[in-house]
This record gives sequence, structure tokens and C-alpha cells, in this order.
Amino acid sequence: MTSDLLLHNTLTRRKEKFEPVNPPHVGMYVCGPTVYGDPHLGHARPAITFDVLFRYLQHLGYKVRYVRNITDVGHLENDADAGEDKVAKKARLEQLEPMEVVQHYTVRYHQAMDRLNVKRPSIEPHASGHIIEQVAMVQQILDNGFAYESKGSVYFDVLKYNQQHPYGKLSGRSVEEMLSNTRELDGQDEKRNGFDFALWKKAQPEHIMRWPSPWSDGFPGWHMECSAMGARYLGETFDIHGGGMDLVFPHHEAEIAQSVAAHGKEAVRYWLHNNMITINGQKMGKSLGNFITLEEFFNGTHPKLEKAYSPMNIRFFVLQAHYRGTVDFSNEALQAADKGYRRLMEALKTVTLLKPSDKSDSDVNALKNKCYEAINDDLNTPQLIAHLFEAVRVVNSVNDGHEKLTADDIKNLTETLQLFVTDILGLSDETQSAGDTALVEGLMETILALRKEARARKDWASSDLIRDQLKAVGIQVKDTKDGVVWSRE
Amino acid sequence: MTSDLLLHNTLTRRKEKFEPVNPPHVGMYVCGPTVYGDPHLGHARPAITFDVLFRYLQHLGYKVRYVRNITDVGHLENDADAGEDKVAKKARLEQLEPMEVVQHYTVRYHQAMDRLNVKRPSIEPHASGHIIEQVAMVQQILDNGFAYESKGSVYFDVLKYNQQHPYGKLSGRSVEEMLSNTRELDGQDEKRNGFDFALWKKAQPEHIMRWPSPWSDGFPGWHMECSAMGARYLGETFDIHGGGMDLVFPHHEAEIAQSVAAHGKEAVRYWLHNNMITINGQKMGKSLGNFITLEEFFNGTHPKLEKAYSPMNIRFFVLQAHYRGTVDFSNEALQAADKGYRRLMEALKTVTLLKPSDKSDSDVNALKNKCYEAINDDLNTPQLIAHLFEAVRVVNSVNDGHEKLTADDIKNLTETLQLFVTDILGLSDETQSAGDTALVEGLMETILALRKEARARKDWASSDLIRDQLKAVGIQVKDTKDGVVWSRE
Repeated sequence: MTSDLLLHNTLTRRKEKFEPVNPPHVGMYVCGPTVYGDPHLGHARPAITFDVLFRYLQHLGYKVRYVRNITDVGHLENDADAGEDKVAKKARLEQLEPMEVVQHYTVRYHQAMDRLNVKRPSIEPHASGHIIEQVAMVQQILDNGFAYESKGSVYFDVLKYNQQHPYGKLSGRSVEEMLSNTRELDGQDEKRNGFDFALWKKAQPEHIMRWPSPWSDGFPGWHMECSAMGARYLGETFDIHGGGMDLVFPHHEAEIAQSVAAHGKEAVRYWLHNNMITINGQKMGKSLGNFITLEEFFNGTHPKLEKAYSPMNIRFFVLQAHYRGTVDFSNEALQAADKGYRRLMEALKTVTLLKPSDKSDSDVNALKNKCYEAINDDLNTPQLIAHLFEAVRVVNSVNDGHEKLTADDIKNLTETLQLFVTDILGLSDETQSAGDTALVEGLMETILALRKEARARKDWASSDLIRDQLKAVGIQVKDTKDGVVWSRE
Repeated sequence: MTSDLLLHNTLTRRKEKFEPVNPPHVGMYVCGPTVYGDPHLGHARPAITFDVLFRYLQHLGYKVRYVRNITDVGHLENDADAGEDKVAKKARLEQLEPMEVVQHYTVRYHQAMDRLNVKRPSIEPHASGHIIEQVAMVQQILDNGFAYESKGSVYFDVLKYNQQHPYGKLSGRSVEEMLSNTRELDGQDEKRNGFDFALWKKAQPEHIMRWPSPWSDGFPGWHMECSAMGARYLGETFDIHGGGMDLVFPHHEAEIAQSVAAHGKEAVRYWLHNNMITINGQKMGKSLGNFITLEEFFNGTHPKLEKAYSPMNIRFFVLQAHYRGTVDFSNEALQAADKGYRRLMEALKTVTLLKPSDKSDSDVNALKNKCYEAINDDLNTPQLIAHLFEAVRVVNSVNDGHEKLTADDIKNLTETLQLFVTDILGLSDETQSAGDTALVEGLMETILALRKEARARKDWASSDLIRDQLKAVGIQVKDTKDGVVWSRE
């Protein structure tokens, strides 16, 4: 490896050399799902992006503690401090206990992530399971003078905080600008300013998810959980915090303010954000009829989809774009990605069968270094994939006898492909099991061709042997007026 | 259906008609795993037993809320109040944060249960996520005079409780007997009596998993979590509490006392306990070298196993015994169970292909009623399986032309088999995918026989066709001195 790992820090708006606080340990926190609906592409992208970072950091020898939370309480409908709790609303509509909703969609999320070959994080804490830590942190912020209690709720005092610490540094907003843009919202007169955010909310009488606190029976504000659980499992200062770009403001901005207000220092050294996904150029949304769940992609059941797209097809497609760029899903683009994915899988098999020569026409080490340089350049997976396709070209060229490689280079090339394709990009070979069905069809084609010839030459012994053996393995053959058809019993 | 559902209540030591408190709702709580090691048969048996009950109650039309907890804190090594926390010890040995241990083994547990086709429960609460509820319940017990604080820990006062409520009713023990058998344990002088149990334990300085409480920074006693989480999600009174027989004392006995002491009434109406598992007649234990994990069964990697045993093989084997009887695992018994399982799966396919007659030689309705009677008789799955094999006999007899069934009876028989085998016993067909490998082998055998004949009669056209077509589907054939061998490319 010839280069350092550079990561783009949203806070400084530039690529920085990655240096952990406490090597060889790396602490990484990524915002996980709010579990009130089926997982979709908006869940897949951050999961895949930070899965690649998790895998790569481990490959580099770091001991990574990767925390990804499950938001099961406190995330209100409008992402600010108004509206119903998203999980509680779903529970009300489906007449379930909120934790039944949480369980159902957490399991669905895990199933989809498993299929996408996303590794489970090291710890997956639930917001509702860390009320004590959140209450304690709210108390610290109150004690430090950066919050106020109002009618049983506690709000973060943005103006007060901004007098000492710049509020808005992550998103590039200024409080002055926010002041001029804020309009007063109905029922929010508990707040001193519209941009103050809830640290603790008093529960309405009908609210099921509620816990005691010094201020009221209630529940934590949405932003609290990540600050409290990050500190709980990664310490007051840790290395990486990731999430979707839509979380930069207010969620991550609030997290920074909460940590500074409670602990006197920022928690996070590198803020990483993946960009959003569009579908045929449009933002994904239930009202636009283009809200496609991952399961619908895998099964091809959504009307906008021409066919089913396998988990690895989706994963490869996501990785073909750099994580900080947008990705636009379309049937054409997905089908093109599938071809690319299959070429890679094919090459992974072919490379192990190459015949060595006494000299090499390609510089495998240089190719490998280019792969490292690409991933080191802020996880430039599209560039990495381009280099891997150059490797595929070499593999096929050697296989066809147009180029030569020594045994050492074949070994190096094999290891390089396996390392980057399988271990780091996390692309598993799902063509294998599909392969059996194709294989059975191919073999049956051969047998039926032989059966036809046997009959043509009135070779009843062969014809009978075919009939008996097929019957023994559970295959029925019928002569119809449209030709020969076969089926499994 | 002709009979009522009877369940054996450990509390009354007899079978009782099942009548839920609040029909059509049923609340069921089952003790889940302490997540500090790989899942084994001791996890599989209660999971499968109560999965069948969960499935059957749902089939009867009940809306079941099934809670199965994850114990991630408070379970000390000797199951009483001494020794190290099991999760914390594992974390110390592996140099991990305890919640990393919890995550790792929770994922492993879920993977194994998924393979055993055990449905996920409705809610899966973590003990560490419900400290607030546990602290509140300890406070209630203290307020009601049934507990005492000692050096920052809180203990349940068994003698005091026993003056008003019989302690030991579930396990059939008496306090008098316990008094005579109790020996003082080292370092337990905090307790008034050796059989008092911890509701809250003050944490030693090195203990990572700790939370604030009115008494000390510490953690809840092991028995508290089930009482508190049961009440939280199922209410102060609910229908069914299940678990392994080894949990009757002290765990479930303590749960009863805690509920009565806190709420003035017992929480549970029906206590159900599955019996234990032995391996070749011996108790399973790490020191005996017969501690076999589920994964080792599935892969056949443990030295005591002659081969791999599939998840459905294990599930069927467990269900062949009544849940209140012991089960002894041996290679012979597992291999016999595999044959039975395959016969059932075969019949499920055959029944759909039966040709109807104008009369029936078997009484399918009577057979169906017998199946219901068996499952209604305290989940008598061995009896149910015997009836299902009678159904298999009928299916095969009709298929062979020895017996007749009308179209209606074939439909009824098909539905009965699917209902009991697939839906209620939860036996899925895993012979399907394994079938492809066998099928490919069978087809290759046919092709190679044809190839041999073609060569014998010097039919080079057929021989070439075989070679070319096999190459096209990725199969290489080699003539060796030991005969013809083939392999996939």
C-alpha cells in the first residue's frame, strides 16, 4: 500500500488523512433506521457505504467498534419537535404495542441488510433502551446552562449556546440566518426560539412510550439518543460519525451542540455523509408512487420495475457511484450494473484457472496499488471498480491466450481480486445457486437431444435407459404436439 | 375441532383447559437466552416448543403477543447471587465491551433460530434496556415491605413474604425445608437468609454494566427482568409463562414472589415448562466433551457426530418427544428422525398428485380430528406425528392404487397435512435445494451411460454432442484409469 486513507470530513469540507484517536482502536457511529416501515434504498445506501468503510478499516488492521443505533422512540413525524412519534403512530394505526412495531421492522431491516451482505455492526443499541443515559445527559446540559425547562419539556437553548460556540458549523448555517427564516409554529410556544430543539418531551396522556424523569413522564428528543449512546459505547471523543446527508441538519448539528454543551468538547473527529438516492431522477416519496422497498427490488413486484434485481445487483449499483454523489436508480442502470457484477464474478472464477507462463505482460502490483489508491481516496469505489475491470480484462486476456502472467502474478491477481471484490466491496457470489437451475436445464437439453437421436435410429435400449433414469431422479418427460416438455415430479 | 386445548400447568401439576384472560388476546412470556455463548440444544428446545404453541394459538384465531427476552445483564455465574456476570465475564476474557458480546451472540442465536424455522416473537426486550422498569418494581417491593437494603444492594425477604404467601408453590419446595438445607455462602453476609435473592446488586468498581439507582450504582438481579418486562408488555396479569424446567427454581419461583410482592397478585395463569435434553444419556456439559452447538449439528463438525444434521432434522427430532419428557440425542436417533422427516415431506408432495375416486376407503375427517385431539392434549406432538404418519400411509396407499379417496377427501387430507406439518409443527421443506445437487448427479450419470454406449458403437456424433454440450454448461469430463470422472469448472 502506497498511500494514506483520506476521508472527506463534512465539518472541514475537505479530505483529511484518517488518524484514529486511540490506535489500533477505531470508534465509528452511524445513524441507523427509525423502525416504523419496510427498509428501502434510503436505508441501503448508508448501510452499504459504511459497511465498506468498516470492512476496509478492519482490513487495515484496526480494531473497529462500529455502533449503529435502532431508533425506536422520539423520532417525531416532522423531524423537528412537532407531530406524532413515528413508531407510536404506526402502532396506533396497526393496533399494536409500539415495541411490536419495532420488533417487526427491525427484523425486516436485518433480513434486508443480511441479503445485501452488510455486516452487522459491533453494537446495535436501541434508543428506548438508553433512557437513563439520555436523561443524565439532558441533566448535564441543563446544569451547564445550555437548556431550559418549559412545561415539563426541556429544550436546547440555541442562542445561548451560540454565544460561546458556533451553532451551524457542520451544515454551514448561521443562527442569524436561521433567526430571519424561522416562523413560529403552532403549539410550539414552549420554546424560546423556533430553532431550539427538544432534549426531553413531556408525554401527552395517550402516549404509551413514556418514562419518568426529573421534568415529567416523557421521552427523549430525537437527537439525544445518538449523543448519549455514542458517548456510552465509544467514549466522549471518537473517530467517525456517519449517516445520510439529510441528517446533517438538524440531527447532526444538534448532536455536536449537545456534546459540547454536556462534555465541553466535540465528540466526533470525522463526519462522513452519503448522498441521497433518486429514482428516475425524482426524489423517492410515497406520494410520487416511486417508493420502492428493498423487498420489492429483490422480488421485482413494484410496477416501476421491469424485473427483479438481486441484492448483489443493488449493492454493486450503489458502489458504482461515489458515496458523496447522488445515485439515480432506473431499470436500465440496474440492468447494466448486473452485467458488470456478473463479469466480476466470472473473473473471480476464471483467475483461479489461469495457466502460468514464464513472464508477465501486465504489472499486477501496479494494478493492486491503484486499487488501494482508489479506496484510500475517500472510498472512491467507482474508481476502484474501474481498476477491477482492468484486472478482469487481464484475466480474460490471459485466459484467451492473448497475454501471459507468471504463477506469482496469477496468485497476486487472484488475491487482489478476492480482497477488493469479496472482502472490501462485500460482493458475494449469488450466481452459484442460480447456476444449479441453469445447469439442470443444460443437462436436460443434452439428454433430450440424445433421446431424439436414439429414437431416430430406433435405438430402444438407449431410449428406455433415458426414460428409466429420468424417472428415478424424479423427472417426467412428455411428447406433446409442441415438442418435448419435461417437468420435475 | 372437537376438543378444548389443555395445557399442563406446572403450578397445579395438572392439565387445565386454556382460557385466556382477555380473549381474543393471549399474552405469552418465554425466557430467552443469556447471550454469552453459542446457541445449543438447550436453547433450541424451549424455542421450538413455544414456537409450536405460538403457531397453534394463532391458528386457533388468538391474537398472541409473544414476548421472549434477551438476558444481557444480571445473570451471574452460579445462577444465584454470587459469581461474575456471565456476559461481563465473557467480555473481560475477549477484551470487548459487554454489549459487543451481547450483539455477537444475539445475532448467532437469531441465525440458529431462523434456520430451525422458529418464528420471531412479537417483542424481544433486552434486560439492559429496561433498568427503569426494574428499579421501579424493586422500589414497589421495598415499599410493600418485602425487601430490604443491605450495603447498597436490595434483597427479597423470603421469610417475610412466606408469612403471608406460600413461597415455593411452583417448585413444590417449602421454606422450612430450604432453611434446613441452606448453607451460608462466602461473601453473602449481606443477606438475612441464604435463600433471599437479589433484586438489585451494587456494582463492584470494575463492573462496566452499571446504572444509577436509589440504592447504589449497580445492576438488577437476574429474576427482576422477567417480572418487570412481563408486566411492561403483557400487563400485571397475563396468560402463559414458559421456559425450561431448570428455570422453575429459583428463577420462576422468584418471579411469582416478586409479582405478588409488588402488585399484590400473581402475574401468570399457566406456567409451562419443557424438559431437558441429554446426549447419549448424559447431561450436556463442557467438561463432559458433549457440549455440541447448533452450528456443529448443522455442519457435523463435532467429534461426537457421525454426520451433519440439518435444522429440520433437529426440529423434527425435538418434536418427536413430548415437551415435558426428556429427549436423548444420539446419532442413531437423529438418523431415524431424518428418515421420518423425509417421509413426511415426500407425502406432502405426493398428496397433491393423487387421483380422485368416487369413494373413500379412509375417514379423513376422523384423522384430522385425531390430529387436533393430539395437539389439544397439552401439545402432544409425538401423538400428532403418529397420526400424521397414518395420513402418510393413506397417501402412499392411494398413490399405489391400493386405496381410494374422493376429490373432497384428497383436498381435506392435503390441507390437514399442510396445516399440521407446515403451519403448526413448522417443518419446512429443506429437501428441495439439496435435491438439485442430487438431481445434477443423477442426470450426469444418465449422460455418462449414454456416452459410454455411444463410444461402444463408435457413434462419434453423439459422443461429440455430449462433449460440446457439457462444456457449454461448465462441466469437464475426464477418462481416468479408475473410470470416468466429471467436475464443474
